[in-house]
Amino acid sequence: MRRPCNNLPGAQRTAAFRPLPAHSCAPTACNKCLCPHTSLASLHTAASCQTGTPIRIAASTAMNDRLKCKIGPSILNADLSQLYKESQRLLDNGADYLHLDVMDGHFVPNLTFGAPVVKCLRSKIRHAFFETHMMVQNPEQWIEPMADAGVDQYTFHIEPVKEIIKTCRKVREAGMKVGLALKPGTEIDAVRQFIDQADMILIMTVEPGFGGQKFMTDMMPKVQWLRHNYPLLDVEVDGGVGLNTIAACADAGANMIVSGTAIINAPDQRAVIASLRETVESSIHKCSV
Amino acid sequence: MRRPCNNLPGAQRTAAFRPLPAHSCAPTACNKCLCPHTSLASLHTAASCQTGTPIRIAASTAMNDRLKCKIGPSILNADLSQLYKESQRLLDNGADYLHLDVMDGHFVPNLTFGAPVVKCLRSKIRHAFFETHMMVQNPEQWIEPMADAGVDQYTFHIEPVKEIIKTCRKVREAGMKVGLALKPGTEIDAVRQFIDQADMILIMTVEPGFGGQKFMTDMMPKVQWLRHNYPLLDVEVDGGVGLNTIAACADAGANMIVSGTAIINAPDQRAVIASLRETVESSIHKCSV
Repeated sequence: MRRPCNNLPGAQRTAAFRPLPAHSCAPTACNKCLCPHTSLASLHTAASCQTGTPIRIAASTAMNDRLKCKIGPSILNADLSQLYKESQRLLDNGADYLHLDVMDGHFVPNLTFGAPVVKCLRSKIRHAFFETHMMVQNPEQWIEPMADAGVDQYTFHIEPVKEIIKTCRKVREAGMKVGLALKPGTEIDAVRQFIDQADMILIMTVEPGFGGQKFMTDMMPKVQWLRHNYPLLDVEVDGGVGLNTIAACADAGANMIVSGTAIINAPDQRAVIASLRETVESSIHKCSV
Repeated sequence: MRRPCNNLPGAQRTAAFRPLPAHSCAPTACNKCLCPHTSLASLHTAASCQTGTPIRIAASTAMNDRLKCKIGPSILNADLSQLYKESQRLLDNGADYLHLDVMDGHFVPNLTFGAPVVKCLRSKIRHAFFETHMMVQNPEQWIEPMADAGVDQYTFHIEPVKEIIKTCRKVREAGMKVGLALKPGTEIDAVRQFIDQADMILIMTVEPGFGGQKFMTDMMPKVQWLRHNYPLLDVEVDGGVGLNTIAACADAGANMIVSGTAIINAPDQRAVIASLRETVESSIHKCSV
């Protein structure tokens, strides 16, 4: 007998239990969803779960009551001709997940890589948590290819999407977590009505498209608003985040930290990741006492 | 004192000398163009020239009077998480150039990789000849990024381009050779008036977008027409080309052979490349005696 799925969107984790339609989990589920109909099922077993991310767990469990810091390096400015080697190095140095920047040259003026590259990377790195940041004109187009490629979280921009709720549902049905991303020019009001459909909200702190840009401090009010209204929601920042800007992100309430050049170009990646984590965990601790 | 540039399009190599405007070459040029205004100048010195490709040479030189067979593996179905390693292996096994499949998910229903990946690959492989096959909606958009990334030949599809001659000129001004590509459904008539602007014509022998498709023999009349009318023009075929189909390509007159899975998946890449080459060279020899 199967029990109902606890695959609740992040913003609703403390709300009443609300299973998704036609969606069920195996009784032996780890703290991630074990949707038997997804291609990712094999990655979601308790044995293979390495991230420790308290996502998709039952709303009633204790782990849900704590926000976790997660550091996700962006590999955009890494050596993309040896992506596996660079990615494994980041994970070995303490990264909690990989933030994979997918750009199609239409939504943003850069063309990076798509599902074939992610799929090859997944074939080498079986168990790490992959988030694809879909900077593409038509996010719905790549849901199935990315699910097949072994992506765990599909974060797409709301700006070009007409049917956001439908797209969220499709991402979830494909077995992936839902991230909603906002460009700097997009107000928080644009995403408010969709937060309960999402596992995470990404606040861009640079214009998406290229690495190495200057952090936009004036995006922090968006992060503050999200943290204030959704204490347990995963809130991610991306763009110009490094040792000089992490305090602003942490103070505002971000708990998922995407950092590109600051980690990639560091002579000691492990030390940078540890320092970023320490700052965020300190803020989370201060807020919880 | 500088001498005028001999950077003539392929189809016009035997025609009268016709220098391009504001375009000059250094007197110490190797058999490739040494345009001092391009970012690729450093790759085009005699010392670094490894491909031996008789392209952009003076129309009057003897080397222009012979067609050369060139084998260019497509890395689309290789392990893209270790692109450098896979590419170097192909070159070590006898590949003459690398055929890099760039797809933006708009012109074709697949999203592969763009200039950031190519640039990283070029930083590792300094001297091999890189052809990017631009399966993108707006080829003009990527001319500069690909030139900066170190691309030697920019092959774009004529189907979505309104100003083909202007785009050819921009590619050449950016220091790259010009390739014009035709989807299977595009008749040869569509490219006839532009052949004298190009260094190479690519006849697709599958629908572009994915590797591993079945070779379309009925594309061979296009190749035959090109070879008959342009005896020294580089004519490339791409799609489903392997040991079982190379004879048809060679007999029709193709001299630049893109082969993906047939080489990538072969237990002995060197043997497959050698066999493809032997078939094509045999056809070229038969035609020249």
